[in-house]
Amino acid sequence: MDEAQWRTAQGILFVDQYELTMAQLYFRMGLQGTKVRFDHFFRRYPDYGSHQAGYCISAGLEWLVEWMEGARFRREDLELLRSQRGSEGGPVFGEDFLGWLGREGSFGGLSLWAVPEGRVVHPRTPLTVVEGPLALAQLLETSLLNHLNFQTLIATKASRVKESARGGLLLEFGLRRAHHRGANAATRAALIGGADFTSNVGMSHLLGRPPKGTHAHSMVQAFLALGMGELEAFRAFAEVYPDDCLLLVDTIDSLESGVPNAIRVFEELRRKGHRPVGIRLDSGDLAYLAIQASRMLDAAGFGEARIVLSNDLDELLIWQVLTQIEQEASRYGVDADRLVARLVYGVGTRLVTSEGQASLGGVYKLAAVEREGGLVPVLKISDSPEKTADPGCKRLWRLYDRRGFATADLVALEEERPDQAEAIVLRHPSDGSRTRSVRREELSQVEPLLVPVRGGGRRLCDFPPVDELGARRRADLERLDPGVRRLVNPHVYHVSLSQRLWELKQELIERERGGDVRRSIPPAGPS
Amino acid sequence: MDEAQWRTAQGILFVDQYELTMAQLYFRMGLQGTKVRFDHFFRRYPDYGSHQAGYCISAGLEWLVEWMEGARFRREDLELLRSQRGSEGGPVFGEDFLGWLGREGSFGGLSLWAVPEGRVVHPRTPLTVVEGPLALAQLLETSLLNHLNFQTLIATKASRVKESARGGLLLEFGLRRAHHRGANAATRAALIGGADFTSNVGMSHLLGRPPKGTHAHSMVQAFLALGMGELEAFRAFAEVYPDDCLLLVDTIDSLESGVPNAIRVFEELRRKGHRPVGIRLDSGDLAYLAIQASRMLDAAGFGEARIVLSNDLDELLIWQVLTQIEQEASRYGVDADRLVARLVYGVGTRLVTSEGQASLGGVYKLAAVEREGGLVPVLKISDSPEKTADPGCKRLWRLYDRRGFATADLVALEEERPDQAEAIVLRHPSDGSRTRSVRREELSQVEPLLVPVRGGGRRLCDFPPVDELGARRRADLERLDPGVRRLVNPHVYHVSLSQRLWELKQELIERERGGDVRRSIPPAGPS
Repeated sequence: MDEAQWRTAQGILFVDQYELTMAQLYFRMGLQGTKVRFDHFFRRYPDYGSHQAGYCISAGLEWLVEWMEGARFRREDLELLRSQRGSEGGPVFGEDFLGWLGREGSFGGLSLWAVPEGRVVHPRTPLTVVEGPLALAQLLETSLLNHLNFQTLIATKASRVKESARGGLLLEFGLRRAHHRGANAATRAALIGGADFTSNVGMSHLLGRPPKGTHAHSMVQAFLALGMGELEAFRAFAEVYPDDCLLLVDTIDSLESGVPNAIRVFEELRRKGHRPVGIRLDSGDLAYLAIQASRMLDAAGFGEARIVLSNDLDELLIWQVLTQIEQEASRYGVDADRLVARLVYGVGTRLVTSEGQASLGGVYKLAAVEREGGLVPVLKISDSPEKTADPGCKRLWRLYDRRGFATADLVALEEERPDQAEAIVLRHPSDGSRTRSVRREELSQVEPLLVPVRGGGRRLCDFPPVDELGARRRADLERLDPGVRRLVNPHVYHVSLSQRLWELKQELIERERGGDVRRSIPPAGPS
Repeated sequence: MDEAQWRTAQGILFVDQYELTMAQLYFRMGLQGTKVRFDHFFRRYPDYGSHQAGYCISAGLEWLVEWMEGARFRREDLELLRSQRGSEGGPVFGEDFLGWLGREGSFGGLSLWAVPEGRVVHPRTPLTVVEGPLALAQLLETSLLNHLNFQTLIATKASRVKESARGGLLLEFGLRRAHHRGANAATRAALIGGADFTSNVGMSHLLGRPPKGTHAHSMVQAFLALGMGELEAFRAFAEVYPDDCLLLVDTIDSLESGVPNAIRVFEELRRKGHRPVGIRLDSGDLAYLAIQASRMLDAAGFGEARIVLSNDLDELLIWQVLTQIEQEASRYGVDADRLVARLVYGVGTRLVTSEGQASLGGVYKLAAVEREGGLVPVLKISDSPEKTADPGCKRLWRLYDRRGFATADLVALEEERPDQAEAIVLRHPSDGSRTRSVRREELSQVEPLLVPVRGGGRRLCDFPPVDELGARRRADLERLDPGVRRLVNPHVYHVSLSQRLWELKQELIERERGGDVRRSIPPAGPS
């Protein structure tokens, strides 16, 4: 595909066909301008199989908003839609609708509220709220979910990896196995979620982080094939990068060849007044090799040299490596804490693909529709109570206890002000028997989480650089119960409905159930 | 990011930093022009946990070649590289190197051979071979792997889903949960691998397939909220799309409300001379609902209406649904075969993210380096014999038995001509005790799999449209043993080395092992 084709593939036609067929239907019925609200939320934390997330990190909003602001139906896009033929050979889209798309088919008029990027977020809470004309709000669905699902998924994974690495330096190395150009969004989300640097050169520059990377096995192999050795390869590297010398030591044998050769080259650098950066271990028993390499580096006076670990790492493997180091280091006379402090983690594939759970099931549900001048709540009832979405125009609040820890997220009706209430009733979203009440004095803060992003045709918020988003994430994590942050089987964080929202939901469920045609009866099993 | 920034993020700086640091090192040593060969291959089939692939479908080549042909270091790219600072504040890249990159940093001069897209491929065989100047061949690594790993992963998954659907119509619906812009590559790969259509509008048009999609639950909900019912929503849809009327029936209750309402609208359409397309089931027990819906549609005289199934489907769930239909349909007086024949599958998330195994571990290994005028083989020895890559300049052949079934893939040295040999010795790649010999007369065909893609500065092959690639895949699958195509625990397809390649590999392993510094000794465990 040429550049013009790529523009098409990434523009407003980056959309599911059904959004367009629905939009035309609304247009034909004169409903295209009916004001509606859609809520975006996800239903479950990522479950990686052997380990599970207890929180997510919100990400992707800035790129979504940029996409929204740029997306419009260009003449070329309309030509493509015009070419679509139905099964009887007639055009799928009429000229009336295409003309309207060309004139009014953009997202600038939609209002948007969202939980800012970098914040800790939880399931079944509105993370993004879209208000505007039905046809356009519907058209936004595909791209909104595409942007927010993926970056939130990866920021969450990065945060877990960073937690398991106990805050150690984390490098994102996943470009070669990421999902094609999704790699760039993965890099950004990883930097929001916990990565300190990335190997992705373009994104590094665009996001203002210096890229990281030194050399591959192929460099040592090339030297070997040319009749030289690993030592010569390392020397050549040190010659070109004397102050940034980080050597990959496992091409031949990490302890027998790589580390000794690296130490020789480091000694040469030291004599010339340079300070070597360290080594990278990329295969074998990383804990054992790190202990031995640490011992060898220390003995040679390179106690400050870093040890970068890589090779299909994820949060569980890093946890295993650190546990093993703690258990075994002292046996070799190595101080485990000092060793852990010098470790750096290169994490690629399993970070940028969120190995174990490669998607986040974010959804975009109609919550309210304009009728007789007001927005009336919409309920999508489901056989399973947990899947019945919360109706109406809502806001999201976070309650902090006296210690400053987040104790619950509260979904309330828009007009409610739980921050000014004396007591707050917290209802379980689907189990009517579970309820609790907190007095305002038990809380240190009641924080509104949704901020205005777009409204009145313009941007209403700033999008800070990834460094600031990372700081936001750290601040949120510090206010999160350690049990919720656990890598395996985390505590379940409380997500609650306000009493009034709960009552509205019950009322609508009753009304739906009472209806004639709309009855919701589970299918009878075979008798 | 604005459009110019996106161009940067998707251009030649879509690369890992270490490719650039190595390239500068080669440049400084005067090795940038040394001729080398790199092989691209993957080591293992995707393993989805409860089920495993026994083959892969090659995909991604056309987009890789297009990227290669367009990629160059523009002034803006060089400016970004020029801005990089090392730890002591000096520039990472020198002006000499940047000047060279600006003049010669493009991929037009590389030669490329590859297994064409749409072909069945297997692990540990060269799927792409790159020959050219060391620095540029190295620089290509990141993007080559990014393009080929992902599309091959998704084409493979699509092929499995198509197989489990027994060739039934397959629609790719994954845009909302794909990995950001990787969604477009996923769509293309899905169409190569087995999807018939996609909901992705832009890619549909660019790849020449009409997009598919009708309406979401939100449309029915909007009608309900506006005081109308599901029936009115269906009628409105039928009014706008009388010849393409496919209705999503599970917003309220599939059997109690959705199907009866759909049938009423279908009857109205029939009276007006239109033929309804069918219904879509998106929740609940899909097998049971499909049987009942089929019965109801038949009774109303809509025996030809399609039943589209969706809701987190993958190859295993489709298999389960079809098995259940076969076991239960007759109990309800429904002919299972007729029902299966009317099914259509909408598969999204689990297809475009390759759920269960979200990455393919393709690698790019140095195979030969120019020395004294010739290309000498390079060996990357590893502690595990399976990970020791095959050295030298190689070609890949496929052997077909007398029935026309593929019986083995053979990696041979470039100068070998197994198609002209009277007998072929097949050596196991790492286990010296396993060898077999086939006589030419036992084979119906010995097919070279690598074709020239680029050479002499130009393209040497065509890239056919996705339809043709799909036909290639089907032809290959028909020549593949059904045991290898099995969804769970497939037979292991034979991948072999020629006798001469085996001997070369052993000789190089011996030489490496005999070396002094290069000895490969497994790390001693704690004693």
